[in-house]
Amino acid sequence: MTTQSSVAPGQAQDLARQVGEAMFSADVASKDTMRMELLACEPGRALMRMEVRAAHLNGHQICHGGFIFTLADSTFAFACNSRNQNTVAAGCSIEFLKPAHEGDMLTCEGIEQVQSGRHGIYDMRVTNQKGQTVALFRGKSAQIAGTVIPTDEVKPEEAKK
Amino acid sequence: MTTQSSVAPGQAQDLARQVGEAMFSADVASKDTMRMELLACEPGRALMRMEVRAAHLNGHQICHGGFIFTLADSTFAFACNSRNQNTVAAGCSIEFLKPAHEGDMLTCEGIEQVQSGRHGIYDMRVTNQKGQTVALFRGKSAQIAGTVIPTDEVKPEEAKK
Amino acid sequence: MTTQSSVAPGQAQDLARQVGEAMFSADVASKDTMRMELLACEPGRALMRMEVRAAHLNGHQICHGGFIFTLADSTFAFACNSRNQNTVAAGCSIEFLKPAHEGDMLTCEGIEQVQSGRHGIYDMRVTNQKGQTVALFRGKSAQIAGTVIPTDEVKPEEAKK
Amino acid sequence: MTTQSSVAPGQAQDLARQVGEAMFSADVASKDTMRMELLACEPGRALMRMEVRAAHLNGHQICHGGFIFTLADSTFAFACNSRNQNTVAAGCSIEFLKPAHEGDMLTCEGIEQVQSGRHGIYDMRVTNQKGQTVALFRGKSAQIAGTVIPTDEVKPEEAKK
Repeated sequence: MTTQSSVAPGQAQDLARQVGEAMFSADVASKDTMRMELLACEPGRALMRMEVRAAHLNGHQICHGGFIFTLADSTFAFACNSRNQNTVAAGCSIEFLKPAHEGDMLTCEGIEQVQSGRHGIYDMRVTNQKGQTVALFRGKSAQIAGTVIPTDEVKPEEAKK
Repeated sequence: MTTQSSVAPGQAQDLARQVGEAMFSADVASKDTMRMELLACEPGRALMRMEVRAAHLNGHQICHGGFIFTLADSTFAFACNSRNQNTVAAGCSIEFLKPAHEGDMLTCEGIEQVQSGRHGIYDMRVTNQKGQTVALFRGKSAQIAGTVIPTDEVKPEEAKK
Repeated sequence: MTTQSSVAPGQAQDLARQVGEAMFSADVASKDTMRMELLACEPGRALMRMEVRAAHLNGHQICHGGFIFTLADSTFAFACNSRNQNTVAAGCSIEFLKPAHEGDMLTCEGIEQVQSGRHGIYDMRVTNQKGQTVALFRGKSAQIAGTVIPTDEVKPEEAKK
Repeated sequence: MTTQSSVAPGQAQDLARQVGEAMFSADVASKDTMRMELLACEPGRALMRMEVRAAHLNGHQICHGGFIFTLADSTFAFACNSRNQNTVAAGCSIEFLKPAHEGDMLTCEGIEQVQSGRHGIYDMRVTNQKGQTVALFRGKSAQIAGTVIPTDEVKPEEAKK
C-alpha cells in the first residue's frame, strides 16, 4: 500500500507534518467552522476528530450526514496531500452505518490504498467514542501541479529529526 | 421515473410541500448552520440553494467539498421524504467537476430515478449561477417506519386544493 | 447536458455511428462472448441489448451481477467514445434493483450527463422486457490521446447524409 | 473488522469452507463461463483467481472492465455469504487502476470491513501476477432470509476439526 518515494522515511514524516500544519492553519472550513482537530498527518495517512454539536443536527435530531462526510473529506485531503504534492478530490462515496448524536466524538482515520500515476484511492473510516463505525468513505484523488508548501520552506532542522 | 401512489396528484403535491416545510423548520444544520433555502419540495423532487460564504472555504480558498456534499445531501433528504414516508440515506457518491468560490450561488435539484420496494435512487445536480455543473451526487435511500408529519395533521383544506 | 462541438449535428451523428460500428466489430467480449447487440451509438448516447442465458446464471439461478455490470459498462464505452475521442472508464458504481432471470431481455441506455475538460459522467439504466429497472450504473470517463477511427477514414459520403 | 458470532472459530472456518464449496459448485457463471477458481472461503473473507483469456478482450485488446468487475463481484459474494446467511449485493463501486492483458492471472481478495445489522461493507482488491493493483471494488451487502446450506447439512465431523 506504500508508494514509491525518493525521500527518506524520517524526512517524509516531517514533511507530512509540516504540510498538515500549513494546510490546517489556512483551512477555515475545517478548523473554525467545523471545529475539527488534526491529530496526525503522516505520509499517506491522516487522523482527525470532531465533536457533534447542536449546530450539526438535522430535523431527525441526529448529525447531518453532510457533516460526517465533511469530516471524512477533510481527513482525505490531509492524507492525499501529505507528500506535499498538490492533490484534489475527484470523487467520493460514503456509506452511512450508524447515526451520530449530539455530544458524540467522531474520529476519522484516512489511509492511502493505492497510488497509480497521478491517481490515488484513499479509505476513511469514521468511528464514534465507543469504537463503532459510523461511516466508511472512499475517495479518489488526482494530483495537480505545484506543492502545498514551497520546497525551499521545508524546515531543514525538522527534516533531519 | 414515477412511483406508484394511491394519492391524487394535487394531494401529493400539497403533502410534499407540507412535509418539506415541517422538515426544514426543524433542520438546524441546513437552515441555520448552512443557511440553505428550500425552493421546492414536490413528490420525488426537491430544489435547494446556498451561497458560498467565507466560512465555507478550505485551505485552497475554495468551497470545502463537504459543504457542496451537504447541500446535495439535504436536497436528497427533502426529495426522498417528500411522500411523507420516513426515509434515510444509506449511501451516497459525489463527483466534483468544478470548484465553487466565495459568493457563488449554488443551486441543487434532486430527482427520484427509481423506487423499488423500500429502496430508492435519487440524482442530485449542483450548478452555479452560470449554469455550470459543480457536482453530481447519487443517493441511495431506505424507507424506515413512520411518517414525517402525522397523517392526521395533513391540513385538509390544503390537501383539497 | 450537451457538449461543445465544432461538428455539425448530422456529421456528429454519422461519426458516432461509424465509431460504434468500428468499436463493436473489434469487441470480442461484448459481441461474441456476451452476445450483446449495439442498437444505437449517437453523440453522447448508446443503446445495447443482451439476453440472459444459462451461462450467465450464478448459484442463486439468477443472472450474475457481473454480467449486468458488463452490459452497462459496454454501453458506457460506446456512449463515451461516440465523439471519436479515445476515452476510458476510470470508475463506475452500480446499484442492483431487481434480479434478472434466464430468458430476460436486458436493454441498457447510456446517456452523457456532463463533460468537464477530459472527464465525463455517464448514466446507464438497465431495464428488462417489462420495462422494470434492473440496475442503475454511473460511469466516470477520462479522455486519452488519439481517436477511435482515423480522422481521414471517416467516410465522406456518409458524413454528408 | 470481526463480527459477533456464537460459533467457535474452528467451526466458523469449516462452515465457511462448506458454504464456499456449495455455492461454487452451483455457480455456472463463475465456474464454467468465467473459469474462476475459488482459492479460499473463510469467515468474512474470500480469495479467487481468473486468467484473462482472448474471450475477455474488448476492442482495445485489453480485458473488458466488466469481467474484472465480475471476478470481484464473485469474490464479494463468497465473502459475504461465508457465515451461511443468505446475502445479496445491493450496490458496488469499482475503480480501474491498470489494464489487464491476455494471459494475465488476476487474483482477488475480498475482506469484510464492517457489518451493521443486516448490512455489510466489503472491500475487494484485484491484483495481477506482478502484484500490481488492477482494481479496487467496494460492495454493500444485504442479508436476506435463509441459509446457503441447510443447517442440518453442516457436516458434524468437519465442524469439529
